[in-house]
Amino acid sequence: MTSFFEADTNITPTASGRWTAHISADWNIGENPNGGYLLTPALRAAQHVAGHPDPLTVTTHFLRPGVPDAPAEITAEIVKAGRTLTSVQVTLSQDGAPRLHMIAGFGSIDATTAHDATWSVPPPTLPAPEDCLDRAELTQGISIALNGRSEIRVDPATIGPPDPDRPAEIVGWTRFRDGSDPSVLALPFFADAFPPTVFTRLGPIGWVPTLELTVHVRRRPAPGWLICQVWCDDVFHGKMIETVRIWDSRGELVAQARQLGLLI
Amino acid sequence: MTSFFEADTNITPTASGRWTAHISADWNIGENPNGGYLLTPALRAAQHVAGHPDPLTVTTHFLRPGVPDAPAEITAEIVKAGRTLTSVQVTLSQDGAPRLHMIAGFGSIDATTAHDATWSVPPPTLPAPEDCLDRAELTQGISIALNGRSEIRVDPATIGPPDPDRPAEIVGWTRFRDGSDPSVLALPFFADAFPPTVFTRLGPIGWVPTLELTVHVRRRPAPGWLICQVWCDDVFHGKMIETVRIWDSRGELVAQARQLGLLI
Repeated sequence: MTSFFEADTNITPTASGRWTAHISADWNIGENPNGGYLLTPALRAAQHVAGHPDPLTVTTHFLRPGVPDAPAEITAEIVKAGRTLTSVQVTLSQDGAPRLHMIAGFGSIDATTAHDATWSVPPPTLPAPEDCLDRAELTQGISIALNGRSEIRVDPATIGPPDPDRPAEIVGWTRFRDGSDPSVLALPFFADAFPPTVFTRLGPIGWVPTLELTVHVRRRPAPGWLICQVWCDDVFHGKMIETVRIWDSRGELVAQARQLGLLI
Repeated sequence: MTSFFEADTNITPTASGRWTAHISADWNIGENPNGGYLLTPALRAAQHVAGHPDPLTVTTHFLRPGVPDAPAEITAEIVKAGRTLTSVQVTLSQDGAPRLHMIAGFGSIDATTAHDATWSVPPPTLPAPEDCLDRAELTQGISIALNGRSEIRVDPATIGPPDPDRPAEIVGWTRFRDGSDPSVLALPFFADAFPPTVFTRLGPIGWVPTLELTVHVRRRPAPGWLICQVWCDDVFHGKMIETVRIWDSRGELVAQARQLGLLI
């Protein structure tokens, strides 16, 4: 069965290095497609040209809001092909205007080097999903169609009435609502799907546009829930840095991410 | 007086959107120019085309090692011009082959939005520079010309004989050896100048090539020493994520950065 995520991020080739996609309105935050959703068709195009399976590092500049329920054109080309990493750049446009520009480094998660050292960050402890709060019940000050596609269950200890003395950090579970399992290509989506943590201190602040998002995919996620830890430790002149860690159902760190966002 | 950093990262226009530079051997790690040094001429070209003064987010993919004591050609073009952020892409080539590809978002650090909330991370406490260890006295298993250009003084408590149980984290002071003050354009350099923290656990491991580096510039640095905190919490299959915070002499957080590096 095709998941909603696969169906709604599907791309169709039109020429060498060119694809079309249809941007759904079902992944909106307010009037705009969620950034992590909008970048996924571009990431699929990047994967096609890269010749390596896994996006190891994905940087996206969000140039203009995406247009929901409308077609998109994608161009992708190799910047440099390599044995360990191939760098690809991608542009996704709608109505003739570029909406996002991506540079992604593809390689193989399973390939290793001579160094076999492994260390990592353990997941936080948090209540079971059924004892957490569904994001759909939280007030962000904006209508969120995305809640119908992604399920987010927030540890109640990390959320509550806005409090300027609270650390801006949210811990919770996430998965697709349709029960489909996470994939390597879905991790950048999940890295941008949590509510902005600034609202735990500042209250409902509406849409917090992402200017730039960089995601590092670290492992292939196991089926089941993901655990996300999202925090913002740096707000200045309306610009914020938000950092994300994602673990899979085995407790393995599968992605790290960071974004530059705007408080408007 | 022109600093070594300015002189050795100077660019000369040759046509619209094109520059040349001369890559010095004085900023080498072993046989290769330090990545943070090599990206700086590209960053200068980006600033020229951006029409905004400050690099707010800078992502560089390092495609091939740079060639020391050799010319470089740089091309830069606007991806999207904006009032808050202008995205620029840059390629630096030597011997006809691209060495690095950058996407940078330029804006104004001094511009603010309607939101005036400010929060930040305080600097770590560490001994005075004269009570710290000069990086030139540390063994990284490689010859480091860079030590003649950048001074790094490491808190001795964060360094010592390699110990697999030690957190891979180094705290220290840094500045240019010639006494010139840090600038906004120098912060990406400083974000890549510390020794790789993995060596505190794994011992001297030589060159750790950076595949991708993303730097967020948060404030204009005051004159004087910078404080850096560098840590690696994630090594898997020879690929590591290293994170950096930089504070200026006032104790203000001036940059955050993260890189994907390779243990070869």
